[in-house]
Amino acid sequence: MSIKIGILGYGNLGRGVECAIKQNPDMELKAVFTRRDPATVKVLTEGVPVYAIEDAKKQKDEIDVMILCGGSATDLPVQTPEFVKMFNVVNSFDTHAKIPEHFAAVDEAAKASGKIGMISIGWDPGMFSLNRLYANAILPNGRDYTFWGKGVSQGHSDAIRRIEGVKDAKQYTIPKEEALNAVRAGENPDLTTREKHLRECFVVAEEGADKVQIEERIKTMPNYFADYDTIVHFISEEELKRDHSGIPHGGFVIRSGKTGWENENSHLIEYSLNLDSNPEFTSAVLVAYARAAYRMSKEGQSGCKTAFDVAPAYLAVQSPEELRAHFL
Amino acid sequence: MSIKIGILGYGNLGRGVECAIKQNPDMELKAVFTRRDPATVKVLTEGVPVYAIEDAKKQKDEIDVMILCGGSATDLPVQTPEFVKMFNVVNSFDTHAKIPEHFAAVDEAAKASGKIGMISIGWDPGMFSLNRLYANAILPNGRDYTFWGKGVSQGHSDAIRRIEGVKDAKQYTIPKEEALNAVRAGENPDLTTREKHLRECFVVAEEGADKVQIEERIKTMPNYFADYDTIVHFISEEELKRDHSGIPHGGFVIRSGKTGWENENSHLIEYSLNLDSNPEFTSAVLVAYARAAYRMSKEGQSGCKTAFDVAPAYLAVQSPEELRAHFL
Repeated sequence: MSIKIGILGYGNLGRGVECAIKQNPDMELKAVFTRRDPATVKVLTEGVPVYAIEDAKKQKDEIDVMILCGGSATDLPVQTPEFVKMFNVVNSFDTHAKIPEHFAAVDEAAKASGKIGMISIGWDPGMFSLNRLYANAILPNGRDYTFWGKGVSQGHSDAIRRIEGVKDAKQYTIPKEEALNAVRAGENPDLTTREKHLRECFVVAEEGADKVQIEERIKTMPNYFADYDTIVHFISEEELKRDHSGIPHGGFVIRSGKTGWENENSHLIEYSLNLDSNPEFTSAVLVAYARAAYRMSKEGQSGCKTAFDVAPAYLAVQSPEELRAHFL
Repeated sequence: MSIKIGILGYGNLGRGVECAIKQNPDMELKAVFTRRDPATVKVLTEGVPVYAIEDAKKQKDEIDVMILCGGSATDLPVQTPEFVKMFNVVNSFDTHAKIPEHFAAVDEAAKASGKIGMISIGWDPGMFSLNRLYANAILPNGRDYTFWGKGVSQGHSDAIRRIEGVKDAKQYTIPKEEALNAVRAGENPDLTTREKHLRECFVVAEEGADKVQIEERIKTMPNYFADYDTIVHFISEEELKRDHSGIPHGGFVIRSGKTGWENENSHLIEYSLNLDSNPEFTSAVLVAYARAAYRMSKEGQSGCKTAFDVAPAYLAVQSPEELRAHFL
């Protein structure tokens, strides 16, 4: 009686979900759905069929939870309200500013169909959001700090690649130790963009390209780099491939707060992630919340949910009794 | 329409709850209940009455949530099932091994009365437990590590005070940097008791006492110190009072895990607390869960609950809409 999972979209995230399902004994990958020609998509799990996305509706009764592994820009806003008409769904919608409208659209469709639509699951939004909420509820008198990295920013890497003369590039966002330490010391600093993060770029230039000019164009690029201390390294294509092909990421959520009748005592709550693979970790969170979606749906719940609405016990493979005996 | 809170037991924890209520605009301290003569107890909040514990039942309809601030050894096992017959209650029961039986007793009484009994709220059990659960659900293939400190252990301080020739003492539990760093490096070390924590003791000896013998008796004390590297400092009573009168604590919950088809990627999830005042932080958590108990009770829920059963949104003063717009 395992939970039957469908994966919609088979990129880095979809493959990550497939790997995570393998680690969860109460789950089973039922099918993968793709926009590509299904015959061209080979999945890792023995015996799992790949179908065209249009055929998903035929699997309506075969799949307990569909994990939507598309992008936040164009895929998820359309797919999520559409697929929640047929399935319990989980997505990693991460356009922070558009979460309220996405929630409203998914909630309406999910309530009409009686399904669960779990949105914005991952680490930010997701685990970082949860930690902000918990820490704020415990320490109402305090300040929040979020640092990202060390990790690869896809958007910044892409921005460098669009510069003339650049063949390939990878950009790392790195939190500044001094800033982290000032926060940890309870100094409640006001930090500028430049003080919080450093940007380190590894760039492969086209042959004969003007490296001085490329470096200048990177460092002065508005929004992306101009407000930061930016370090640019030119390396060979082989070096980029050898040393920078991973997708690490992570970060820190810190709340510094006061308690006591006269606010005389200081406290620091810190949550941090250090991830070899950003998409695989996000996938692992998606799969845990797929378990929650399944259980909440079985209880008769419906509508749009975020990590804020899910009691932690729903995520665990262990029974409530086991959790109380061994985790509490 | 604020949430009316009662405090049962006015020691460090009860005073911490009082201070925390002051920081939460949707709450109001309605009354304090004590086993002492109420006339001898002076609370910080202007106009709040102090009653004898026996008179609590008269306030049955005046108080939304009663926060039980007694000890886990003898107070809470008796008081919690008793008071949940009349009130929604929250406690910080922290005898880990006895949580299942405490849960059963509170659950039975709470279901009979239709109230919420929220148990084992604080940081360990409590926030540390939650982080163990979340991290295990996300990374099923991994290892857990918990380190405590730097902080004062009341039990170890008491054990030193019982030694002949000791006038007063304070003991700090300190996590070892090397062990923490090995865990953070993803080495998944097997750590002995001695490798994980150091014990540092500040001892005031009676005049003329044999300090060499006191140090020897501390360092060889079974269960408490024999398995640890222990450092003993003899200081004056004035120094103890001046430098060691706080009750700081904290610690680290770390899960190190693998993802990927061949477990090729490593991840580290770390949660840490650095607390000036152990009881005030615990109190702050109790108060956040009192809000949850109130809301869950209003929804018609009843029975015993732990932090595992509480959806995070119940803890926050903000509305679900505000949470999604600003915290997600």
